Amino acid sequence: MFATTASVLVDTTVATMARGADDTGYGLVRDAALVLDDGRVAWLGPRDELPEPWRRAEPRSLGGALTTPGLVECHAHLLFADDRPGGAPRADGGVAATVAATARCRDDDLVAATLRRARWFVRQGVTTLELKTGYGVEPEAELRLLRIAARVRAALPVRTSITLLAGHVYPPDADPDEYLLRVCDELLPAAIEQGAIDQVEVYCDETDGITMEHASTILETVYRRKIPTRVSADRISDSAGGALAPAFYSKLAAHLNHTDDIAVKAMGRAGTVAVLLPGALLELGTAGQAPPVDLLREQGVPIAVSTGFEPDTSPLADLRAAAHLGRTLLGLTPAEALHGITSVPGRALSFADAGTLAVGGRADLAVWDAEHPEDLVHWLGAPTCRSVLAAGQPVGGAW
Amino acid sequence: MFATTASVLVDTTVATMARGADDTGYGLVRDAALVLDDGRVAWLGPRDELPEPWRRAEPRSLGGALTTPGLVECHAHLLFADDRPGGAPRADGGVAATVAATARCRDDDLVAATLRRARWFVRQGVTTLELKTGYGVEPEAELRLLRIAARVRAALPVRTSITLLAGHVYPPDADPDEYLLRVCDELLPAAIEQGAIDQVEVYCDETDGITMEHASTILETVYRRKIPTRVSADRISDSAGGALAPAFYSKLAAHLNHTDDIAVKAMGRAGTVAVLLPGALLELGTAGQAPPVDLLREQGVPIAVSTGFEPDTSPLADLRAAAHLGRTLLGLTPAEALHGITSVPGRALSFADAGTLAVGGRADLAVWDAEHPEDLVHWLGAPTCRSVLAAGQPVGGAW
Repeated sequence: MFATTASVLVDTTVATMARGADDTGYGLVRDAALVLDDGRVAWLGPRDELPEPWRRAEPRSLGGALTTPGLVECHAHLLFADDRPGGAPRADGGVAATVAATARCRDDDLVAATLRRARWFVRQGVTTLELKTGYGVEPEAELRLLRIAARVRAALPVRTSITLLAGHVYPPDADPDEYLLRVCDELLPAAIEQGAIDQVEVYCDETDGITMEHASTILETVYRRKIPTRVSADRISDSAGGALAPAFYSKLAAHLNHTDDIAVKAMGRAGTVAVLLPGALLELGTAGQAPPVDLLREQGVPIAVSTGFEPDTSPLADLRAAAHLGRTLLGLTPAEALHGITSVPGRALSFADAGTLAVGGRADLAVWDAEHPEDLVHWLGAPTCRSVLAAGQPVGGAW
Repeated sequence: MFATTASVLVDTTVATMARGADDTGYGLVRDAALVLDDGRVAWLGPRDELPEPWRRAEPRSLGGALTTPGLVECHAHLLFADDRPGGAPRADGGVAATVAATARCRDDDLVAATLRRARWFVRQGVTTLELKTGYGVEPEAELRLLRIAARVRAALPVRTSITLLAGHVYPPDADPDEYLLRVCDELLPAAIEQGAIDQVEVYCDETDGITMEHASTILETVYRRKIPTRVSADRISDSAGGALAPAFYSKLAAHLNHTDDIAVKAMGRAGTVAVLLPGALLELGTAGQAPPVDLLREQGVPIAVSTGFEPDTSPLADLRAAAHLGRTLLGLTPAEALHGITSVPGRALSFADAGTLAVGGRADLAVWDAEHPEDLVHWLGAPTCRSVLAAGQPVGGAW
């Protein structure tokens, strides 16, 4: 009965990335069969245990390739206009220059630019992707970016998670306290009314973000509205931002280069996922301090890895490269690095089935010209992503 | 007359990477036309200056994409057998484990593995590629790798430069002086007799390579035979290896993390190209010391950038990622980083026309989903390489 619609994939090693499945940490199934039906995984296991009805279907050989869950990019600033029209050298204005360029950009062009970047990620195996605002800053401009994000979501074949970055930087010349009132009284109610927000984020860093007090006020307002929160904190200095995440049961806390042990302990108790961004660390150069990886492990904080893609401070557009840098720059094990871009962020983005392959879950998967999952984080720039499927449909590479 | 065989490419910005052509440093030609004929560049310039005969040909639109010379990878260890059969975890044996795995590997498998890696590079825009031996160590094993290299060269559609790494490490349990005699008396004459060597290299580092005295003896022997030399030196410690390169008029000297100012001055006078390997530096972690970039600039030493691809200490398989890391880890300017993977190594590998686009030169080029050459080294993992042509023929991507 189901043999007519299902496709049966064989000649592949599957890394399910399910925890506890085996002692490799990758949930390896060698010489596997994988049955996709109606966008979901209908069966997964050793080929010689494939149940009878599917044995009769004509299988599709993956030629020995490795299959993993589609990758999960949980922290990416894709929504902005490039401030280098016609290829002029990049303006040195940082966030302010990007905000100005984004304001000048027409809606359709902004959608197109964001889709182009999103496709960079999809082609390289990503099937779950965050869409974060933040280059609006003023309430009206942030609401516009949320509408752009909704258009991008509708045009993409992969799952997206939309984040309103409600506290990124203060507008130039604005009084910070007055800006905070506008965020809480204008932006947040209007954004919630407008819909299509999966979570609200604050960027807390005394050096170039908003203050811990203001971040706390925003998080409390959002928490009372029962919207999930997330935090970026302590990138350049310890601003106690890391401690805010567990205080408001945030699912994710990013950067954490300068986060102290008290905050890390609280994250461990609250179940907050640490999102490490080695690409952002790279761009900081010698000014960068690595996040406290050993402490995170000791306190049982789940570790996700992300490109932290953004135009100025983390120009990293390949999630697997971020995992590689997690290994080489931050000392993650290969298994930690790979879970960091699959199972760990998958859970944190509130998609129960993202980042792992299991029966009943969505058929989001990537096929690689590789033999072993360790290859995916050992090399940088290889091996190649051969095919990407979202809900069982090809969305990148050849199929 | 030539309109029948020539192809005329339009709707592209060309970065010729010719020096002194303009004040951008990229040799930019906007709204360019590029005429390819019989594997060479027949004409290149602004489209509205395209000479009459070619105006009548049907042009091929590149849709606004950026065209650059094919990239030049001048330092890559592609010839080895992977020591992780069936995906087992990597043995911690470093060079010795890779040498043993390579010895066990059948010739055909070694050719196939090397070709697979070479194609990683070609798909990402590389049209000139070094093939370096070194995982043989014993004379007979190195001669075998030279034969493998010749087979790989014959099977690849891009230009290759074959390097005999005649002094890499001492064989375990061998007397170093006795090994040196075998290299000079057995390996070098037999290798020269066998043919297909473009240059001979030594790896000089007191910590894990051969000594300065032994390296000097090998270089002198090679120099007397009028074969070009190159040096890898001072990766982990200052072993005075950097000073050897100018002493024997070596074209290239790689690593140089600990090379002192006297050696750098000599390199400047001798015209030796410094090959910087940020991927290898990344893998060294906190133990790594960056090469003296400011000093190299001051002394007029041309700077090339390479992946330094090898299985253990530089698992970087994307030359453009190396250029990006040159920018972020080593502080190269975008123009230095891009010249470092095009025009500078092109000259050093003795192909006068590699790494730049000019009339009369080979039509080796890469087409990118980018607007400006700076984009190629600004991002890591994007934009995408759309097409790669070698001698005017498509060898990677869509065409």
